[in-house]
Amino acid sequence: MARRLEYFFDYVSPYSYLADSQVPALVHRTGAELVHRPFLLGGVMKAAGNSPPATVAAKARYMPTDIARWLRRYGLGFEFNPHFPVNTVKAMRGALVALEQGVFPAYHQAMFRAMWLEKKNLGDEAVLGAVIEAAGLDAGAILARAGEDAVKERLRANTEEAVARGAFGAPTFFVGDGMFFGNDRLDFVEEALKG
Amino acid sequence: MARRLEYFFDYVSPYSYLADSQVPALVHRTGAELVHRPFLLGGVMKAAGNSPPATVAAKARYMPTDIARWLRRYGLGFEFNPHFPVNTVKAMRGALVALEQGVFPAYHQAMFRAMWLEKKNLGDEAVLGAVIEAAGLDAGAILARAGEDAVKERLRANTEEAVARGAFGAPTFFVGDGMFFGNDRLDFVEEALKG
Repeated sequence: MARRLEYFFDYVSPYSYLADSQVPALVHRTGAELVHRPFLLGGVMKAAGNSPPATVAAKARYMPTDIARWLRRYGLGFEFNPHFPVNTVKAMRGALVALEQGVFPAYHQAMFRAMWLEKKNLGDEAVLGAVIEAAGLDAGAILARAGEDAVKERLRANTEEAVARGAFGAPTFFVGDGMFFGNDRLDFVEEALKG
Repeated sequence: MARRLEYFFDYVSPYSYLADSQVPALVHRTGAELVHRPFLLGGVMKAAGNSPPATVAAKARYMPTDIARWLRRYGLGFEFNPHFPVNTVKAMRGALVALEQGVFPAYHQAMFRAMWLEKKNLGDEAVLGAVIEAAGLDAGAILARAGEDAVKERLRANTEEAVARGAFGAPTFFVGDGMFFGNDRLDFVEEALKG
């Protein structure tokens, strides 16, 4: 029976962008059942009492170097988003809507591209809508549904569940009870899925 | 010409213990010139405005799981040291003396074993001395020299240099100006040494 891989992510997170590029092949190799779990990184940080790495100046200086090494390994493009840290709450609610409407792959790819290749301000609803439209999706319908209480509550619930299960950052993966934090733990995720 | 690999470590750091187990083979594969740079992790954290991961409760809960995965991958033993966080200032000064006296390999191995296999309190000078003696070295001579200002100053200088070059934790590696933080970046270190 296929093992379940739960993948908690936020479009605002560059390490989620890195990991996301590797997830499809990992799922293919392991035959895992992938479950996308949009959450809000800011909410996780706050609830866990964690702070963004860039609040330590030396980490902020190191991070671009580290990210560049992963980009080169993965063969990915990247543009630092001048709007960072963007408020992604609407974009993440939209991801939940895209999941329920069966249009997640197009939505998901468009968001990570907009955030980490096209320097878009996803915190601006007009920009967010344009990105959704450009992906061939119905921005009006998605954003209207994203503004409903049921969807807002679902994003809060995902975030609270991740924190309750031990998360303190993004991306965070679960294989059963086993938690794996970070793009740099994907090899352990793969081992867990194969074990 | 062999590239130089500078390796900043502190015996108090479990991720230094993990990395240390891999360094000899990495050096063998790359032909790098390895330079051991003992420093004081507490001093680095303080100067960089960083805080130990375990100060965030969720990170403290995750860390043993993460360490256990690496131990299994590397095939290493480990016992959590009940004296953690030990004050390793004398042990690190001793490492500098062992380097100048040409007895570093025996000293180094004994310290990491004492800290992460034998649960020894390296902050207690009597215990530290016994560990040095058990390694077949002259504890009296090493600790006497370790208490001299020149050695104290050298440890401070290593720590300050690491911070000035961007370090915020341990282990930290440098290949030229390229900094690599953590056991989980050894593959990038190896690429840099081969590149």
